[in-house]
Amino acid sequence: MTENVAELIDAKKHRELKEFIASANVVDLADDLEELTPEQRIVLFRSLAKDAAAHVFSYLSPETKENLIGLLTDPELSHIVNDLFLDDAVDFIEEMPANVVKRVLKNVSEDTRNQINQLLRYQEDSAGSIMTTEYIDLKEGMTVADAFRRIREVGMDKETIYTCYVTDAKRVLEGVVTVKILLLSDMADRIGDIMSTNILYAVTGDDREHVAEVFQKYDLIALPVVDTERHLVGIITVDDAMEVLEEESTEDFHIMAAMEPSDEPYLSTGVFDLAKRRIMWLLILMVSAFFTGGIITHFEALFATFPALISAIPMLMDTGGNAGSQSSTLIIRGMAVGELHLSDWFEIFWKELRVSVLVGGMLGVINIGYKWFLSGNFALGLIVGLSLFATVVFAKMIGSMLPLLARMLRFDPALMAAPIVTTIVDAGGLIVYFMVAEAVMRL
Amino acid sequence: MTENVAELIDAKKHRELKEFIASANVVDLADDLEELTPEQRIVLFRSLAKDAAAHVFSYLSPETKENLIGLLTDPELSHIVNDLFLDDAVDFIEEMPANVVKRVLKNVSEDTRNQINQLLRYQEDSAGSIMTTEYIDLKEGMTVADAFRRIREVGMDKETIYTCYVTDAKRVLEGVVTVKILLLSDMADRIGDIMSTNILYAVTGDDREHVAEVFQKYDLIALPVVDTERHLVGIITVDDAMEVLEEESTEDFHIMAAMEPSDEPYLSTGVFDLAKRRIMWLLILMVSAFFTGGIITHFEALFATFPALISAIPMLMDTGGNAGSQSSTLIIRGMAVGELHLSDWFEIFWKELRVSVLVGGMLGVINIGYKWFLSGNFALGLIVGLSLFATVVFAKMIGSMLPLLARMLRFDPALMAAPIVTTIVDAGGLIVYFMVAEAVMRL
Repeated sequence: MTENVAELIDAKKHRELKEFIASANVVDLADDLEELTPEQRIVLFRSLAKDAAAHVFSYLSPETKENLIGLLTDPELSHIVNDLFLDDAVDFIEEMPANVVKRVLKNVSEDTRNQINQLLRYQEDSAGSIMTTEYIDLKEGMTVADAFRRIREVGMDKETIYTCYVTDAKRVLEGVVTVKILLLSDMADRIGDIMSTNILYAVTGDDREHVAEVFQKYDLIALPVVDTERHLVGIITVDDAMEVLEEESTEDFHIMAAMEPSDEPYLSTGVFDLAKRRIMWLLILMVSAFFTGGIITHFEALFATFPALISAIPMLMDTGGNAGSQSSTLIIRGMAVGELHLSDWFEIFWKELRVSVLVGGMLGVINIGYKWFLSGNFALGLIVGLSLFATVVFAKMIGSMLPLLARMLRFDPALMAAPIVTTIVDAGGLIVYFMVAEAVMRL
Repeated sequence: MTENVAELIDAKKHRELKEFIASANVVDLADDLEELTPEQRIVLFRSLAKDAAAHVFSYLSPETKENLIGLLTDPELSHIVNDLFLDDAVDFIEEMPANVVKRVLKNVSEDTRNQINQLLRYQEDSAGSIMTTEYIDLKEGMTVADAFRRIREVGMDKETIYTCYVTDAKRVLEGVVTVKILLLSDMADRIGDIMSTNILYAVTGDDREHVAEVFQKYDLIALPVVDTERHLVGIITVDDAMEVLEEESTEDFHIMAAMEPSDEPYLSTGVFDLAKRRIMWLLILMVSAFFTGGIITHFEALFATFPALISAIPMLMDTGGNAGSQSSTLIIRGMAVGELHLSDWFEIFWKELRVSVLVGGMLGVINIGYKWFLSGNFALGLIVGLSLFATVVFAKMIGSMLPLLARMLRFDPALMAAPIVTTIVDAGGLIVYFMVAEAVMRL
């Protein structure tokens, strides 16, 4: 499809280009724009209908936005930015370098500039930072017919019209009414009589992850945002909530793999930046593993007399690490989706204890048999089997309890994932292993 | 809050109970129901308005649904199930044991039963399995006024009214029109003239994960579902798409931690079931680690002459595993959110190679210094440092390329996460370690 657009542009087939644009989805047009040369981009972009241009623009990558901005005249830029939904305008400004931001702000209306500056002030990751200020507001005294008149007047520029917000003279949020209710009511009904006053809302400072969870729990398509005095200041729409959920999951994936999280796309992140996000945790974990090496040195005499012990070390370490990260992953994810809470700690402890005895017991028995069969040495089998059993139980206890401990201490539970659990379990498992070996060999 | 409800019920304060219900959100009422005793549950449930009862019911846990069903009379059950949205009814039936299903199906209207049976036939994880058949359908020849009349007539029972679907006499999907467009049009406008014919849709057999990604990419609140002949058979709403995204992320978390994925809540999963989901991968990985143990046995003569080599094994294995799972996590997640593709393989390869040289080089140099300083033995430092460097590079190459290979072979890339990468890197790292040691000691 992209080749077609490029061909249409190069062949100056303006009529066909317009037809193509008219039948295309704005998101797909944005995808096409990404693939074009700057010269082709500006031709395609200028062929867009005025209201579509801002919409397409909001779906472009930061690089393409910056490139396109450089090609636009000041009046064109002004139109685009004034037509963007405010949350998209704010995202855009946050992505651009200072000189571009300066030119953009110079070219928007004073009203838009003030609203953008207002939104830029909300903390990253807060409800305020993902809201838009474009919504339909109604008054209690209006009739349904008045409401429809207002929607017709201002609706085109609002991000969603399907939930309308009822405020008093001081802009305090008093109720909500959906277009569904409006459509099913009489034209003469008073908004104050049909609105719902049992309102779900967010406060500007709320964590955006919490807001996304509210969307999910209550199946919302929009949520009003109020300030601390309950004045309505904006709304959040479901598409932004979905994006937050996805970004927060990605963040957890990154943290759980011992990286500083990033929401920058992989392909456009530099090598040094990628390395920087990974080295810190690798270093911390490496230094912790020096300690585990110290345990081996401490028991050097033991495996000097019984070198066959050494060959089971990788299996013990790996199995312990895997068993522990299974538990920690289940608990971290369970807490992230709101299914598990601190108060469930005993139920989790008791469940993991039983699971680990079952799983560890089975793996331990297999190891006794395997080592016995392979080496003809039952003592070695017993040492490895018992140690593995103890390591798996230890691993699952550490793996399940550490994330809960982190939550209790108000750290991110995702930090207590495979890498840290593995390091702790390795050290603990080796100590158990050598102590079991000493005990069995003394028999 | 729950205590309050329980108290109101026990004290038979019916008026206060009704008031509480009127001001509560249906999702919160479902939460409250979960906490009550069966006797209290049935009182609260019978106090709900008829249209709210089905709505609250759809948010209950399977256990509570089954318990409540056992307390309801046949006519009550019939009302509830007929009032459920069809996708919720299908979910409900899929969760219930056979005897409950039999009683439920006996108590619904024939029409509902046929529609439920139709929906039950779609494959799990398909678009058909998450759609509902309740939507507003319009005809091209209608006017906007006709459309509003139809919405008023049937709208209360439809899951969303905000996007209406235009079909021909054979129910082939011809266009969509949003309520926003209807509200901004003239009452006399013909639907055929204002509808959009450039329609995004899913086919019943499409993978539900793909469908959820379409919602996200195009910021949709509903998507029509057609059969292979483009007959409109249902719609999917954004709340279901969000749920799919969350479930798919959870599935990836589980697979990446070497577990069979499950969407059952942790707390209601039995110990044997939990153990079963974990043991298989632990076994496979354990047997693979036996092989790593074999490598150590193979080089037994080497560390018998130079026992200090052994103490670095945990650090090498852990750091290699961590470095590899950083890369595999980035690539797996990047592919899952549609940011990375197979075609990016060379860019990923080249990037990871440079990152691994940077990170591995730094960690290697630190190790040379540390071992040298600690043992006064430069050779040991050189062996450990060089091996670590090679292991980190190897780990990041394996970690980044394996998920791509899995995608190429049409396996789930999430399988190629930390546990498998660690096992491979452990074996490779140890071989490198001992070979480097032999080489350095020969100098």
